[in-house]
Amino acid sequence: MIGVFDSGVGGLTVLKALLRELPLESFVYLGDTARLPYGTKSPATVARYALQAAEALTGYDIKCLVVACNTASAVGLPAVSAHIAPVPVIGVIEPGAAAACAASRSGRIAVIATEGTVRGRAYEQAIRRGRPEADVQARAAPLFVALAEEGLAEGPIAEALAHHYLDPLFASSAPAPDTLVLGCTHFPMLVGAIRAAVGPEVCIVDSAETTARRVRETLTAAGLADGGAAGTLRLLATDAPERFARIGARFLERPISPEEVTLIDL
Amino acid sequence: MIGVFDSGVGGLTVLKALLRELPLESFVYLGDTARLPYGTKSPATVARYALQAAEALTGYDIKCLVVACNTASAVGLPAVSAHIAPVPVIGVIEPGAAAACAASRSGRIAVIATEGTVRGRAYEQAIRRGRPEADVQARAAPLFVALAEEGLAEGPIAEALAHHYLDPLFASSAPAPDTLVLGCTHFPMLVGAIRAAVGPEVCIVDSAETTARRVRETLTAAGLADGGAAGTLRLLATDAPERFARIGARFLERPISPEEVTLIDL
Repeated sequence: MIGVFDSGVGGLTVLKALLRELPLESFVYLGDTARLPYGTKSPATVARYALQAAEALTGYDIKCLVVACNTASAVGLPAVSAHIAPVPVIGVIEPGAAAACAASRSGRIAVIATEGTVRGRAYEQAIRRGRPEADVQARAAPLFVALAEEGLAEGPIAEALAHHYLDPLFASSAPAPDTLVLGCTHFPMLVGAIRAAVGPEVCIVDSAETTARRVRETLTAAGLADGGAAGTLRLLATDAPERFARIGARFLERPISPEEVTLIDL
Repeated sequence: MIGVFDSGVGGLTVLKALLRELPLESFVYLGDTARLPYGTKSPATVARYALQAAEALTGYDIKCLVVACNTASAVGLPAVSAHIAPVPVIGVIEPGAAAACAASRSGRIAVIATEGTVRGRAYEQAIRRGRPEADVQARAAPLFVALAEEGLAEGPIAEALAHHYLDPLFASSAPAPDTLVLGCTHFPMLVGAIRAAVGPEVCIVDSAETTARRVRETLTAAGLADGGAAGTLRLLATDAPERFARIGARFLERPISPEEVTLIDL
């Protein structure tokens, strides 16, 4: 099985990309809904939660762990990797940063993310490892998370908020970035409103897609890819499985029944 | 000391009202910022968190506990009261419901709150205890919380969201309510946008004010009111004291330095 971990339902956008990229694998997804959101919590607290989640997923005999949460990827990846070695651990930040480096012509790259991810400067650091001369501007867009969870990802409120967050990056007098990284797993839900705010020329990097490709490459390189039958999917949540099912269905783009979601304690 | 407990910074609107109503008392405020928000979590989880917070505050020798969180008031009050008896415990729902019953002429009362408070029907039940014939309509307005925390409580986005949440209650073809209860401690921050959406005739009940009066009455009746010198204020948070200070200052309407906020573990 491949383990996927997020603070809640946002990582289901990554799971959706993984299911498309790796249709013959089995997955176990854990949403830490009892303690979400991670984006406003301190790095030490998020790292501790990530370790507990990784520990719980090792009980499912996973061959690979995807940390499908930007905040946890930003602050918890080294500790998680050390804890469950030799199982490979893949976060969402490094693949997104690499895709942005490849996509940008001008080197001017914008990032929108949660408060925690922006404060930790993880995308800046990862992008500068690929392109040391890059001009990276990051901005927190925390209301996008609540908007996506409430099913208001489209329409005038989403578009007004997209302008609120993105105009300072794209409509100022400085030369505009040519690439925008969606540095939070909720944000692909809002891509329509985001596209309307930044215009048709900007390359939008969705780290769900890039992470799914990275997982496939990692499994293939390690000889762990499954050529078997179509896989299974297990969904775990630490609180409120009914809400996880109802809101998660929008993110996964398929119905989820509450009975499919197993409640666990970390 | 009077103990005040909330999931985060929202209860600071209640603390502000308490400081105004009871300027000679001392207060200890606990924001459970490591586990916020409570509004989307299950009743059992919220009740457990509330008990842990009450337990921690009894260490400060409190003479009264204010549960300044609607979600925790809705699901945790009986357990908390039993646990720390004979210390009186006052929630925010009953005072707000009583004020709405007194204010409404028509008996048509609207309530906006978090998902958890609405689902638990606590305001409906409390209002119907006071006015059994009341026509109560409750609606969740979860994005208001994120909006208030981000300092976007005024302006076009707040006004668009206020219409989104309130028009179905106030601008439909049915006779409109004459009273609106702000059933979440964050919502008084948005009263300008809310007022613009519902018009000048609707009575808006802010449970922070009504709860502060109830605390004063309770202390006076029990002979526990303090006639001493101006009191002290202690602020506790379970995570990210810097963020608590920065965002809390808007709610308390006075500067808070991060050094004033003590980090505790529950």
